[in-house]
Amino acid sequence: MLPDSLTRLVTLLARLPGVGEKTAQRFALHLLSSDSTLALDLGRELVELKNQITLCSRCGHIADVGGDAAPLCVICRDPRRDPTLLCIVARVQDLLAIERSQAMRGRYFVLGRLLSPLDGIGPDALPVERLKVLVVAAGVTEIIVATPPSVEGEATALFLAHELETFEVRLSRIASGVPHGSDLEFADQITLGRAIAGRRSC
Amino acid sequence: MLPDSLTRLVTLLARLPGVGEKTAQRFALHLLSSDSTLALDLGRELVELKNQITLCSRCGHIADVGGDAAPLCVICRDPRRDPTLLCIVARVQDLLAIERSQAMRGRYFVLGRLLSPLDGIGPDALPVERLKVLVVAAGVTEIIVATPPSVEGEATALFLAHELETFEVRLSRIASGVPHGSDLEFADQITLGRAIAGRRSC
Repeated sequence: MLPDSLTRLVTLLARLPGVGEKTAQRFALHLLSSDSTLALDLGRELVELKNQITLCSRCGHIADVGGDAAPLCVICRDPRRDPTLLCIVARVQDLLAIERSQAMRGRYFVLGRLLSPLDGIGPDALPVERLKVLVVAAGVTEIIVATPPSVEGEATALFLAHELETFEVRLSRIASGVPHGSDLEFADQITLGRAIAGRRSC
Repeated sequence: MLPDSLTRLVTLLARLPGVGEKTAQRFALHLLSSDSTLALDLGRELVELKNQITLCSRCGHIADVGGDAAPLCVICRDPRRDPTLLCIVARVQDLLAIERSQAMRGRYFVLGRLLSPLDGIGPDALPVERLKVLVVAAGVTEIIVATPPSVEGEATALFLAHELETFEVRLSRIASGVPHGSDLEFADQITLGRAIAGRRSC
């Protein structure tokens, strides 16, 4: 019941994460009816998106293309960041989540993926050599492994600990336990087990 | 913590209805990381959107621009639709919702707005003349007013009934009552009052 061009737009919008047919239609009608230039502005940004964005040559975070042969992200370019403290994350989303917490004053290293033998992602698929080069070049003295507390995340953390054991760095893993503000009653048994195993003296 | 171009994209995506900063960031990262040409395809559709879409010259539904001076939507172009039965709706979204119900075999008339004196929308802002011309030209014999059961929707329905009283058409209003599958316990008092006032003999 919609014109072809709008149907195409709805189909494309429905490919966004968590967006179904109905929400996509709502987005499309909003883009169409808004008096502003939202549709045009958004369209232009999207057309140019992959020409403007690249990966940081040092940490793998997303970065502006710029004129450099070796582009750096805003975090690696920030002189106030401690280069000796490195936080290893699986995805850019995880980096952004940690940034929001304001609990990390060092730099990052984005793996891009986690070990997952079932999906054919073995140790060779992880950028371990690039990580080792960075650890030496930046004089890293402390590494926080912030992969998620899932089977793949834990396996990746163990693998990285093994790979980095010859380096003179303090290596730690983020804590896993009952989230802030939640009820113990609703925590699953693995989480509660970890909360108890990882208890801290107070 | 994001490159400028991505920040711009997130800001634009956050202007979509129901999309906050976090969801917009999720969309942006998905558009960036997906190997496919989703970002480019979506961008091109959006840039062209307002050049390809117009309003149906007969009913006000959205339509492809095409070559016509008086473009028609897919519903007005469909010869199987009964031209003597007309359903008046406030918005294109409402038309699409009724189409999904498959309960309407006639055509539509999209008002585009509802009477709302507080927002400065008076009777002059409604396309009543265009509606009257259509009723005569299409030989309409029955009109269903499907404006929403809100204060504005009811006021608009009353106003239309008054404007159309000199025409020889059967005029009706969609039923308002307890929705299918819901508990009477959770229905508000106005809805229950309407359900009882609008009872049907069985």
